[in-house]
Amino acid sequence: MTAKDNLLTQLRQINSSAAFNQWAGFEVVEAEPGRVALRLPWREELGQYAGHLHAGLVSALIDTACGFAAYTLSGAVVASHCAVNYLAPGTGTGYLATAETVKTGRRQVFASAELRDHPSGALIANGQTILIPVA
Amino acid sequence: MTAKDNLLTQLRQINSSAAFNQWAGFEVVEAEPGRVALRLPWREELGQYAGHLHAGLVSALIDTACGFAAYTLSGAVVASHCAVNYLAPGTGTGYLATAETVKTGRRQVFASAELRDHPSGALIANGQTILIPVA
Amino acid sequence: MTAKDNLLTQLRQINSSAAFNQWAGFEVVEAEPGRVALRLPWREELGQYAGHLHAGLVSALIDTACGFAAYTLSGAVVASHCAVNYLAPGTGTGYLATAETVKTGRRQVFASAELRDHPSGALIANGQTILIPVA
Amino acid sequence: MTAKDNLLTQLRQINSSAAFNQWAGFEVVEAEPGRVALRLPWREELGQYAGHLHAGLVSALIDTACGFAAYTLSGAVVASHCAVNYLAPGTGTGYLATAETVKTGRRQVFASAELRDHPSGALIANGQTILIPVA
Repeated sequence: MTAKDNLLTQLRQINSSAAFNQWAGFEVVEAEPGRVALRLPWREELGQYAGHLHAGLVSALIDTACGFAAYTLSGAVVASHCAVNYLAPGTGTGYLATAETVKTGRRQVFASAELRDHPSGALIANGQTILIPVA
Repeated sequence: MTAKDNLLTQLRQINSSAAFNQWAGFEVVEAEPGRVALRLPWREELGQYAGHLHAGLVSALIDTACGFAAYTLSGAVVASHCAVNYLAPGTGTGYLATAETVKTGRRQVFASAELRDHPSGALIANGQTILIPVA
Repeated sequence: MTAKDNLLTQLRQINSSAAFNQWAGFEVVEAEPGRVALRLPWREELGQYAGHLHAGLVSALIDTACGFAAYTLSGAVVASHCAVNYLAPGTGTGYLATAETVKTGRRQVFASAELRDHPSGALIANGQTILIPVA
Repeated sequence: MTAKDNLLTQLRQINSSAAFNQWAGFEVVEAEPGRVALRLPWREELGQYAGHLHAGLVSALIDTACGFAAYTLSGAVVASHCAVNYLAPGTGTGYLATAETVKTGRRQVFASAELRDHPSGALIANGQTILIPVA
């Protein structure tokens, strides 16, 4: 098993162990050192009042993707700060969040992420997070 | 019916019409011009890997409470930006988010919120949002 | 000398040792555990193209006031993150930034601040920072 | 004169008309639709207590570069929100901020920026801003 397979396996286990991620339907689709992709298929329970993807799920995808990206380099982390820009309503049949680390320090990890609509590829949101290694 | 009752009724209707809010179990418990409180009873599906309240739900509560506070003064709004500080793990039997508007402009509404553990009252998170009136 | 006088003295020394703070004209006017106030008298060099207080100085006041508030409880800190909302143009003869700590952890200090116009008291900006103790 | 030269000329005029930019020594070095670069040569007055680039100037560079990038597509804008991550102390003989627009809406422009040390190229800070077209 390669290092990439190993990271993917580890993140899928973490993702499986988080009840909310399982309910929402988050799927880890890519993982390499410093970078992950997270997919969420659409279903009606994920909507806000107008039927678009709820801002809370947009934030959850950005935050979780950043946390998983940090994990690939720093091991277990906890979220400290997450800032999200809502750029367009999410109206797709699915969503793809990609995150990458910007700086990996001993005391803080900075990561950034984008959320895109599937299949249009339209940019729905971007964001920045700070995570604290807890290992 | 007083103005406050009216706001509470309107926000409960909006909250009921949002599939995710209903799934998560958000309850609008207070509403007055410029200020709302939102409650979330704990259950296991709301957890991250360690069983604490998932950061995505922390953000969703902060964001939704701010949006509802903006609604009390500006009518329908959409979220533009949300920044959340995760101050302590959420380990209570419930959560209370209180939000208030900071500035209500024609083009932007700024609001801030706190999320506290119930019944301990411990501060779990705070945050700031920007909302855009769409009326 | 009381503890408050001592904090004020220490912060004024730090403020004096920062070349930019001296150039800009920052004055520490209040300091107690967890809370400080910082004053900036207006002069033309502080302006942006329309002659209002430059956004960079708004951020510098928010960030510095938060850092000084963190210092009162945690000693020396470095800024990690600063987010500022620009709520109204700064058009006063002076400005007053007040900051207070929200949570003081061993690894991170969260603080928030407001910037008001003098003498009108109008709210010009608010913001949130994260600081890292370095002692 | 090409469109790029024209943008550069316009931004240099705006930069010249801002007293603080002139004092600090901001220089617009590149401008094309959706993207600008801003340079700041180091001098001692720009320092904080330890002699590194002051966080307020880091924010001012990020914010100004984002505002200028927004200007290239939307004309005159005002800053609404600026969030900055301080990733490393600024210890160079100069700094280069590059900014680009992420989304250009009628009511809001989202931009992001990086600040790098010169000549090392080390990443000092990154940030995100929201700007409001005022034309």
